[in-house]
Amino acid sequence: MMVQLDDLDREILRLLKEDARLTISEIAERLKRPESTIHFRIKKLQERNIIDKYTIILGEKLRPQTLAMVYIQAETPIIEEFLERYIQYLMKTLSMLPNVLAVARSGKDGVVAILGGENSEHIERFVNETIRVLPTLKRVEVFPIDSFAKGDGLAGFLVGV
Amino acid sequence: MMVQLDDLDREILRLLKEDARLTISEIAERLKRPESTIHFRIKKLQERNIIDKYTIILGEKLRPQTLAMVYIQAETPIIEEFLERYIQYLMKTLSMLPNVLAVARSGKDGVVAILGGENSEHIERFVNETIRVLPTLKRVEVFPIDSFAKGDGLAGFLVGV
Repeated sequence: MMVQLDDLDREILRLLKEDARLTISEIAERLKRPESTIHFRIKKLQERNIIDKYTIILGEKLRPQTLAMVYIQAETPIIEEFLERYIQYLMKTLSMLPNVLAVARSGKDGVVAILGGENSEHIERFVNETIRVLPTLKRVEVFPIDSFAKGDGLAGFLVGV
Repeated sequence: MMVQLDDLDREILRLLKEDARLTISEIAERLKRPESTIHFRIKKLQERNIIDKYTIILGEKLRPQTLAMVYIQAETPIIEEFLERYIQYLMKTLSMLPNVLAVARSGKDGVVAILGGENSEHIERFVNETIRVLPTLKRVEVFPIDSFAKGDGLAGFLVGV
């Protein structure tokens, strides 16, 4: 986080995070600054890639009802090179599934993923039928994700259409 | 997911997910439909809360360098009511910390959180000094989140300013 941002930059970013449709004149009015200043600051924030993207968050109706985090650990094979290939294969396969919202490498021999489903039985079935059946896994553990205390909207950001 | 969306709705949502600054006339041109149609569809998608929010994703410079998932499980106390209070307290406390990007309930006795830090030692230190010291925990397990195969941008969505 070696980035120079002043209070005005932060205030602009906070407003845009809340509602990216705000116009420059609306932001200028709220922050009691000239429109030219706001225009210049936003331009700079975009150029510096502090603002990476403008996007939409999908509402409840499109989000899976239930989420879970899964940790998958592979057995270390005798030929270590195979581990790398296997993890890559695993991540690629999971990424293609629409109910797998996020997939990341977790250390040398693991993968973490966020799963979505209609209910916890649906997720459990998916884990049993799609993940646990894979060969050479050492550990598969599912952690339910219930109500959010922080980060709500995560599923609305991740879910595809 | 009991929501009626046709192909045009989905195409509009995909374009807006990619770039929420697209104007109605730009979307109309790309999808070869009249502007009035696009205008009407977006209005409906907003009214139905299919589009929940327009937001910005912050770039690399503002995102933590390293992420990890942590699962925290509490001991079940003799007086069960205390468990609920303790979990609520734990979630609230974690939510207030800026390097805790997301916090959710995980089952009756657990919490999952996404942590950010400059590097894995930083995260490990945070876990040791802030979480493992808490009383009456049964289990604390950290899963590093390395490169994303799907869901990249998650930290840019979650991170505060």
